[in-house]
Amino acid sequence: MIYLDNAASTQVHEKVIEKMIPFFREQYGNPSSIHSHGRLASTSIQNARKQIASLINADSKEILLTSGGTESNNTAIYGAVSQNKGKHIITSSIEHDAILEPCKRLEREGYRVSYLPVDKYGLIDPDDLRKEISEDTCLITIMYANNEVGTIQPIKEISHIARENNVIFHTDAVQAVGKIPIDVKESGIDLLSISSHKIHGPKGVGALYIKKGTKISPLILGGGQENGLRSGTENVASIVGFGAACALAKDHMDENMVYLKQLSDRLISRVVQEISHTTLNGHPDKRIPNNTHFTFLGVNGEDLIIKLDENKISASTGSACSVKIQKASHVLKAMGFSHEQVTGSLRLTVGITNTEQEIDNAVDILKKVVRELRAVSPYKNKYNF
Amino acid sequence: MIYLDNAASTQVHEKVIEKMIPFFREQYGNPSSIHSHGRLASTSIQNARKQIASLINADSKEILLTSGGTESNNTAIYGAVSQNKGKHIITSSIEHDAILEPCKRLEREGYRVSYLPVDKYGLIDPDDLRKEISEDTCLITIMYANNEVGTIQPIKEISHIARENNVIFHTDAVQAVGKIPIDVKESGIDLLSISSHKIHGPKGVGALYIKKGTKISPLILGGGQENGLRSGTENVASIVGFGAACALAKDHMDENMVYLKQLSDRLISRVVQEISHTTLNGHPDKRIPNNTHFTFLGVNGEDLIIKLDENKISASTGSACSVKIQKASHVLKAMGFSHEQVTGSLRLTVGITNTEQEIDNAVDILKKVVRELRAVSPYKNKYNF
Ligand SMILES: Cc1ncc(COP(=O)(O)O)c(C=O)c1O
Ligand SMILES: Cc1ncc(COP(=O)(O)O)c(C=O)c1O
Repeated sequence: MIYLDNAASTQVHEKVIEKMIPFFREQYGNPSSIHSHGRLASTSIQNARKQIASLINADSKEILLTSGGTESNNTAIYGAVSQNKGKHIITSSIEHDAILEPCKRLEREGYRVSYLPVDKYGLIDPDDLRKEISEDTCLITIMYANNEVGTIQPIKEISHIARENNVIFHTDAVQAVGKIPIDVKESGIDLLSISSHKIHGPKGVGALYIKKGTKISPLILGGGQENGLRSGTENVASIVGFGAACALAKDHMDENMVYLKQLSDRLISRVVQEISHTTLNGHPDKRIPNNTHFTFLGVNGEDLIIKLDENKISASTGSACSVKIQKASHVLKAMGFSHEQVTGSLRLTVGITNTEQEIDNAVDILKKVVRELRAVSPYKNKYNF
Repeated sequence: MIYLDNAASTQVHEKVIEKMIPFFREQYGNPSSIHSHGRLASTSIQNARKQIASLINADSKEILLTSGGTESNNTAIYGAVSQNKGKHIITSSIEHDAILEPCKRLEREGYRVSYLPVDKYGLIDPDDLRKEISEDTCLITIMYANNEVGTIQPIKEISHIARENNVIFHTDAVQAVGKIPIDVKESGIDLLSISSHKIHGPKGVGALYIKKGTKISPLILGGGQENGLRSGTENVASIVGFGAACALAKDHMDENMVYLKQLSDRLISRVVQEISHTTLNGHPDKRIPNNTHFTFLGVNGEDLIIKLDENKISASTGSACSVKIQKASHVLKAMGFSHEQVTGSLRLTVGITNTEQEIDNAVDILKKVVRELRAVSPYKNKYNF
């Protein structure tokens, strides 16, 4: 099996698994218990919190532990707006559903939401942001890197505009954290979402960075864990694993970036050179190093995935982080793609677990599969395949 | 170490760990992905859902997967009331904070909440419930078994009253599931919360049973997982582990009940016979088989825990599922305990991992520690210790 769906989820690193297991077997105390079993669990969480903070240059006190990227996003949005009088939110048209759906709920509750447009590369224009800000704006939430096409937004500039206007700035950095260096202090970010399972940690755990002084309300209430901001018995083993994954990501950031870029560059150059009527989507340079995203004209992306799967390659049309009912990508539509371009799209996301040989094999299979599908394509004559 | 804090959290069963590990190492696909990696994850979730459902005689379609008991409770309360016009909630005065805090928030938002009193055993009177119900009542939420003193409420009767009055009935069954047979169909329960880490499954995963036809709104929005009722990439490994823990609990229910009761009976009879000025709290019979809860007059419960910990025994004053800042137990207060009785309390909760020998050793140590503490107690003269 050649797994090229690392943006959807990743293999848990062997060192992460090793760190987690003792917390199932021996150190299973409740971190809120005052006996040593509990205190040990509590200390391990604090240690993990430091590792998570360190990956984005935050203070460990600024890390709120959650059940994943989706909960982090929901907490950021709900938590920030409910501390605020304003009733206007600015986001982009290419956010993940874990941003768009909470925004839509707020619209139903009387908030106004502006969805900034993007250019053909998936970039927002900071001037558009400037124009949208009003007295009533209480939150700007714009993703760090897109989960479909990998485009990285001008986060520092966005953050600067937010600060100038005294508006809280949240960024969904689920696809960016661990892939590129992120410095929340230098970037001036107020709230930032992270998910463990995208960086070789376990699923079901994530974090929300909350800049010191930023006030948010909790989404989940109860025993008062996480300083009252997220109740529920802490997911100790997963938190420890998440911490270990962050430490690994930090320690190997430079080499991983080089390696991932090498794999994806090879994939991109072979695909666009060897398969006709093919384009790379997203920005040519401003993209996370693990993402490749193509349009193969005359091919249906879903057919492609099924054929690739038959050939033991795991791929995706775009977001895998939403239910299987495939709807045409709102990201590609916002980038101005035609229906044909949208349906002909494929995302291949590499990981540190992939090898160059796998990439070469994958391209060979992809060539074969695209040829087969084009041979029976309704667009066969249009493109003279 | 003698671990007698199984109501706070439990050791993950070795068979559960075994089932989980492949989902970190090989089967790490995102269940929403359409390739075989993803489909395998998705199938494993469906299998776990069946195991969870089976433990409470529900249909697997009625099981909503969450990040734990706290999120289940929050979802039940928020989810049910936001589907309803009524503005009145009935609960009890001895609920877990994961019920009380969401209720308090709703009070701040304009809801009226009735907190039913309990008798000295911690039992509510169904007649009190009947009297409180009004046209405006939109939710009754009363716990199945109490987490401090172990008292089991007359759930069938409560459920019957709720149905007669057409009010949704939720029960926080976190401490009861897996300990005593529960049949949601026979009991006519609408919503029921479960937590995995109380039954030898991993932390950070739980479920909300939602009776077919009962409408609730989601708390966390995004990719639309769990039928749109709980978004976020599913915590596959933990869900599989949770399922396995439920299957084990079901398969060994009868023998476990006998064994736990044998251990706790032994603990209770030795403690009350061999340590003077000691009472068993909670109901003599209507209690979950793993719970013992005592008051040792003239002793401070927290000192007791620390001393026991020094002697390698893990115990608790009551709820460990809330932050360490110890506040006087609202449960014991509601049961009419004096300040002295409240502060002199200790909870020892046994598990299937405990042995009879451990119980005997624990009682011996407890006798010694209580004697030592009473020798320096300010109540020394009052009781003539
Ligand atoms: C950009 C983005 N945000 C949020 C999420 C949701 O994170 P999680 O899967 O941890 O809920 C994902 C992927 O799932 C994502 O790619
Ligand atoms: C009665 C009760 N309800 C809810 C909870 C919270 O469950 P969780 O720890 O899974 O969040 C607990 C214990 O933590 C409990 O004992």
